[in-house]
Amino acid sequence: MGEFDLITRYFTRPAARAALGVGDDCALLQPRPGTQLAISSDMLVEGRHFFADVDPFTLGHKALAVNLSDLAACGAKPLAFTLALALPTIDEPWLAGFSRGLFALADLHGCELVGGDTTRGPLNICITVFGEVPVAGGKSQALLRSGAQPGDDLYVSGTLGDARLALEALRGQVALPASVFAQARARLEQPSPRVALGLALRGVASAAIDISDGLLGDLQHMLRASGTGATLDTSVAIDLIAARAHSDWAAGLISLQKQLQYVLAGGDDYELAFSAPPSARQAVQHAAQLAGTPVTRIGQIDAAPGLRLIDASGQTAPGDLGPFSAFDHFA
Amino acid sequence: MGEFDLITRYFTRPAARAALGVGDDCALLQPRPGTQLAISSDMLVEGRHFFADVDPFTLGHKALAVNLSDLAACGAKPLAFTLALALPTIDEPWLAGFSRGLFALADLHGCELVGGDTTRGPLNICITVFGEVPVAGGKSQALLRSGAQPGDDLYVSGTLGDARLALEALRGQVALPASVFAQARARLEQPSPRVALGLALRGVASAAIDISDGLLGDLQHMLRASGTGATLDTSVAIDLIAARAHSDWAAGLISLQKQLQYVLAGGDDYELAFSAPPSARQAVQHAAQLAGTPVTRIGQIDAAPGLRLIDASGQTAPGDLGPFSAFDHFA
Repeated sequence: MGEFDLITRYFTRPAARAALGVGDDCALLQPRPGTQLAISSDMLVEGRHFFADVDPFTLGHKALAVNLSDLAACGAKPLAFTLALALPTIDEPWLAGFSRGLFALADLHGCELVGGDTTRGPLNICITVFGEVPVAGGKSQALLRSGAQPGDDLYVSGTLGDARLALEALRGQVALPASVFAQARARLEQPSPRVALGLALRGVASAAIDISDGLLGDLQHMLRASGTGATLDTSVAIDLIAARAHSDWAAGLISLQKQLQYVLAGGDDYELAFSAPPSARQAVQHAAQLAGTPVTRIGQIDAAPGLRLIDASGQTAPGDLGPFSAFDHFA
Repeated sequence: MGEFDLITRYFTRPAARAALGVGDDCALLQPRPGTQLAISSDMLVEGRHFFADVDPFTLGHKALAVNLSDLAACGAKPLAFTLALALPTIDEPWLAGFSRGLFALADLHGCELVGGDTTRGPLNICITVFGEVPVAGGKSQALLRSGAQPGDDLYVSGTLGDARLALEALRGQVALPASVFAQARARLEQPSPRVALGLALRGVASAAIDISDGLLGDLQHMLRASGTGATLDTSVAIDLIAARAHSDWAAGLISLQKQLQYVLAGGDDYELAFSAPPSARQAVQHAAQLAGTPVTRIGQIDAAPGLRLIDASGQTAPGDLGPFSAFDHFA
């Protein structure tokens, strides 16, 4: 099978929304009047973002999910995406699984494949995603990293740290009960981009970012962009790891310090961190209900730069941020 | 140097046109009223699209050029692009050269970098480019592959086959005089996307495609999309290889058959093939002059499907298309 047969068989579907989809030199998108296009691009590499033997269905899901998570963080409605794919060989069962996983998530979010590229090379998946953000009164309604204000509450969506727990188990670093592992592994391999929450938070949140490299690292990007600091309550954060709520959780296997590390710097969470003024607490809970995604208030935004961790007593948590440094793709 | 320092040092410049550029979860683009966004994505892999030791400046140029060539084929005006980059190591001189070559071409076309991704992995460059196409009376002004009509003239821009000639020389398959090699190598490593010509051909050409995998292969995509065939004059096509016009050209080194093969199926040309009605001959030449890019009439569009090669006498050229089959990234 050649390049064009491959595209036809696995990646060509009729354009539903785009003016022109797969099959010409370019795709054509016409954003609706009064909207902006939000654009994000992520590249996934074998051995760094996924294991070589990962189920191709979940890989197709994840490759799109990490991109949709960026749209979610901007409060953008998914429209379309391009897929560039380097493949070491043409493995039809792999392609069939990958494209099924990809399109299952795409369909769930009404996001259509409009173009891309295929070539032979070390396995590499590069998706660029397009979403729609309204402009009202000349002002973009996008959620940005730069809008946090001192005194704002600090929230995260969903759960944190379970993806890293699964990664450590797959690496043989920890042994987990089967049911705990299965749940954590689903978080690692099939994250749910918080698109509905991002949309519901437009006009409510003051700033937002998606958590892909670990809460503390990504949060610091938001704080720097906003020119603020924050204080974060570790006694609340520790319960964000879903495994702790599991009846089979063998907590003794993993120290509290390690659990906190997974929550604060585990990576691969694809949740949202966001800020909102205290006056918006009801609105935040309403948005969470609308989206069907729980949110947890974990701290507050400060005028003083930097990130401070406190424990239940309000004391600064022991240790600096050293063990909680963010994931760096070049570290 | 980590991922974020790398982005800051080599790839962050202030957004000039985009509503929001590098540095948030998404970039924001707001197409002007009455325009569509043309989108294309290309992935370049070491060992397949370029040699490991290629000058990073020319690689930065080429990575963007192949994408701009897709915009040119649609008659789209370049606006912005994203860059996703997998790097085996952080090699600062390489990054400095690559980013200089990339931005030199980007600046030439007023196309700004608005976002992307970096990660560690086998060298892989994935660019997604965005251009603007006007919509008039509800109709897109984009040049498509599908508009060729029987009786239309068939044209190509610039020169063809020299990039392949350089590739064969670099592979040690042919020996070339230094001046011929230098000229051919520039065509391989720093192709000029025909953006100005694409813009000038809006409303003139009936169909267009960019020639990246070889004239015959790409032309057949255009013919299939248009539901037509074509007849192509090989006695005209043979002179499209620029090396032949060179005073140092040692034609004896390379058979006429090989030269024709480079022209018809060499690949990496990044010229435009397009059709236009005979009534538009003056308009085509005017567009070529405006764009400063010569165009050559090499045949005509037929109602009968398929591609026929004729020689100067009008006879069908000996041999079928076998030796002129297009480049397939999986062949």
